[in-house]
Amino acid sequence: MNALQNYLKQLSEAVNTALDTLLPPAEERPVKLHEAMRYSVFAGGKRLRPALCIAACETCGGTAAQALPAACALELLHTYTLIHDDLPAMDDDTLRRGRPTCHIQFDEATAILAGDALLTLAFEVLAAQSQSGVLALELARAAGSRGVIGGQAEDIDAEGKAPDATLAEYIHRTKTAALIRAACVMGGLCAGAETQTLEKLARYGENAGLAFQLADDLLDESATVEELGKDIGSDKAKGKMTWPAVYGVEKTAADAKRLEAAAIAALKGLKKPARLEQLASFIIHRSS
Amino acid sequence: MNALQNYLKQLSEAVNTALDTLLPPAEERPVKLHEAMRYSVFAGGKRLRPALCIAACETCGGTAAQALPAACALELLHTYTLIHDDLPAMDDDTLRRGRPTCHIQFDEATAILAGDALLTLAFEVLAAQSQSGVLALELARAAGSRGVIGGQAEDIDAEGKAPDATLAEYIHRTKTAALIRAACVMGGLCAGAETQTLEKLARYGENAGLAFQLADDLLDESATVEELGKDIGSDKAKGKMTWPAVYGVEKTAADAKRLEAAAIAALKGLKKPARLEQLASFIIHRSS
Repeated sequence: MNALQNYLKQLSEAVNTALDTLLPPAEERPVKLHEAMRYSVFAGGKRLRPALCIAACETCGGTAAQALPAACALELLHTYTLIHDDLPAMDDDTLRRGRPTCHIQFDEATAILAGDALLTLAFEVLAAQSQSGVLALELARAAGSRGVIGGQAEDIDAEGKAPDATLAEYIHRTKTAALIRAACVMGGLCAGAETQTLEKLARYGENAGLAFQLADDLLDESATVEELGKDIGSDKAKGKMTWPAVYGVEKTAADAKRLEAAAIAALKGLKKPARLEQLASFIIHRSS
Repeated sequence: MNALQNYLKQLSEAVNTALDTLLPPAEERPVKLHEAMRYSVFAGGKRLRPALCIAACETCGGTAAQALPAACALELLHTYTLIHDDLPAMDDDTLRRGRPTCHIQFDEATAILAGDALLTLAFEVLAAQSQSGVLALELARAAGSRGVIGGQAEDIDAEGKAPDATLAEYIHRTKTAALIRAACVMGGLCAGAETQTLEKLARYGENAGLAFQLADDLLDESATVEELGKDIGSDKAKGKMTWPAVYGVEKTAADAKRLEAAAIAALKGLKKPARLEQLASFIIHRSS
């Protein structure tokens, strides 16, 4: 295990412990709802957004502990988007991270409510922080109808449509990059970083976020079910507006590399950029 | 038009104007999503939660303007719960306030996302306030898996089950009273009220909120479609765990009156309780 993998493993454990404390016990009423929330949160996710948030905080001279609540809020919110995206009325997916999706394991009503509750809990967690206002504003803007939700709305509407570069960029920027950008900015906020630094982190996050989605698109084209833990080629089968669908696989791979470089370049001037540099590379070279 | 009706009309107009500014324009991408959000927010709701929030603020010596953002956040959040509750996987309702429900007017995916976006926007609105932390904490706790969402989860699970007083009380307290309680407390917070006053407002809101749901249950038993703007007797038809289903219509009416009195009694010691007293009465004597 290399240093980055070790770092990710440690962060992941810290985040999981914190999430376990933040989530209501599975035995508490309503039991099925709380079980569903925990089922989806503890489904073996990579905790990439928390890692970016914590690494951004550390890059700005803060500690992992300072960013932990914000990191958890990001993961709670991210998990809700996965649950709702998987619903029959949306992407209608049955497999996620190698396990039945929430609405398959439980039922559709429970999946809708579990997503709602995780979204709400994300803001509850931030509300208890000293910088609650700026953190919640950053997360809400990234997650709202001009961010993640807007991206998902256009993503569904775009299914089966002719390749459209403008639309593909809108979807990728909002659906994926917006939250990754917010993760980095929130990490900076937790460290008390100043505006100029936050702008660097935002640029890093935007580029790394787009690179992440391009890598995802490429994995959908090439990886196996075992590697991915979800149905492969499902984006293609659904006629999703992916980068490869618009530009082909080769240009997508080249763009991902270009974005990785742009993300790393954005960090110039920061004191300890090494971890975020490694994460940008990890994002596009991962196999799941 | 009496003084209270006039007051409610004025507040409603102020809240609608503020909501119009807070919501993204319908022409902005994603157009269908933003149209759906506005369709459901501007569906002719009574703006009761905003009115309680603003009246509570005024009762504590604050101004309506001070509570307006919190009042809007409450209405955005309330609207999301209606959209999601109406979904096919939940209550499967086709009519709301005399118009097709969101998923009928648009589609299911759009309704899910519009609800998500309104929930997110509620917290975005609060995040911009100076008391963002305490306000968001109050709202998130009321709205989460231990509040509104928990109530809806148990409400759906309880359908068709034998009358159960404990369960009925859990559902009514969480699904309806929690948010009305939060509306009152948030109004107090906007006025900078102290703990003792906030506790009075909480007790008022809890009792008025329960009374509100009992009045709703009674209307479902007796009102006409025209009065209610939604299918009548639908709770009964679905075997919902309503108060009348557990205790009968007569005891429900008596309990509502008792709760109204308890709500008014909780205000004792506050300087200007008149408006909240009127609202408590309005809540149980309304015809829609």
